[in-house]
Amino acid sequence: MEHNLPDTIALLTRTPAVLDALLRDLPERWTLRNEGDGTWSAFDVVGHLIHGERTDWMPRARMILHFGEAKAFEPFDRWAQQRVSQGKSLGQLLDEFARARSESLGELRALNLRQADFGRRGRHPALGAVTLSALLATWAAHDLTHLHQISRIMAHQYRDAVGPWNKYLGVLQCAGHSS
Amino acid sequence: MEHNLPDTIALLTRTPAVLDALLRDLPERWTLRNEGDGTWSAFDVVGHLIHGERTDWMPRARMILHFGEAKAFEPFDRWAQQRVSQGKSLGQLLDEFARARSESLGELRALNLRQADFGRRGRHPALGAVTLSALLATWAAHDLTHLHQISRIMAHQYRDAVGPWNKYLGVLQCAGHSS
Repeated sequence: MEHNLPDTIALLTRTPAVLDALLRDLPERWTLRNEGDGTWSAFDVVGHLIHGERTDWMPRARMILHFGEAKAFEPFDRWAQQRVSQGKSLGQLLDEFARARSESLGELRALNLRQADFGRRGRHPALGAVTLSALLATWAAHDLTHLHQISRIMAHQYRDAVGPWNKYLGVLQCAGHSS
Repeated sequence: MEHNLPDTIALLTRTPAVLDALLRDLPERWTLRNEGDGTWSAFDVVGHLIHGERTDWMPRARMILHFGEAKAFEPFDRWAQQRVSQGKSLGQLLDEFARARSESLGELRALNLRQADFGRRGRHPALGAVTLSALLATWAAHDLTHLHQISRIMAHQYRDAVGPWNKYLGVLQCAGHSS
């Protein structure tokens, strides 16, 4: 269950193509609707992922390597996608996410991390001391939490349409926990 | 929130490519591990989806159109993937799912369903009377429930590795409801 860099990179590399295959040119019923007031659509989630590439994952990895625990990470803005996405189409956001992810992974590989680096610590503004290893594992798990969320947002659009089958569909029982 | 055939087809068409982008050639940590005894791996889920194409969705749609409520559907075998997948690689299963889904959608389009057909009823062995419309919506939502499940199974493999971030990751709070 330990973090492993090649496994993490394998997963991070695939996410843009997964979201592209799922969302590009899909009817707006699936991509622009959300789960109710204050919740996100699939479109919003892609904007959130772009913002994470710019301000969260590699910037925090660099902070761990440069400052250790001496300087806390910037808090992450969970509503920044409203700015990131403004005036853009979903296709543009998918392209932008693919480019940003590819750049992040280029930077990650260029760090040539060694085993000893994974235990290096930084300071999270709320969680306190965190390791580089946990940050990188969280980056991968964060992709999965949002794939999980997008599948739930989309399934919600057919909540009524499935009729009596709703009790068999686990995704419709999932509480709104990863918005 | 009503069922709409073009929306359903748009989603069903994409799922094989989504699973391919996510799973093909991914390290076995992500594809062959499960969430504990009696649970499924991503590999198992793909086998389950293949079995659904063969025995569940279009066969049940045809039963509704041919027999109405006079004859109940065959119960679905939720463990059939053990036979379906035996001796096969994940790559082979992904290819098989893509072929089976493409054939199913060809059959669905060939039915040339009209608005009045969507209200036609069949008999589910446990749920009783169900409409063709609900069956088709459930087919799409079933893809999403398993994408939701696969993302949860994969995230589970990093449950420990993410350290204190586990409480921020919704996918790690999701109970095992869609296995």
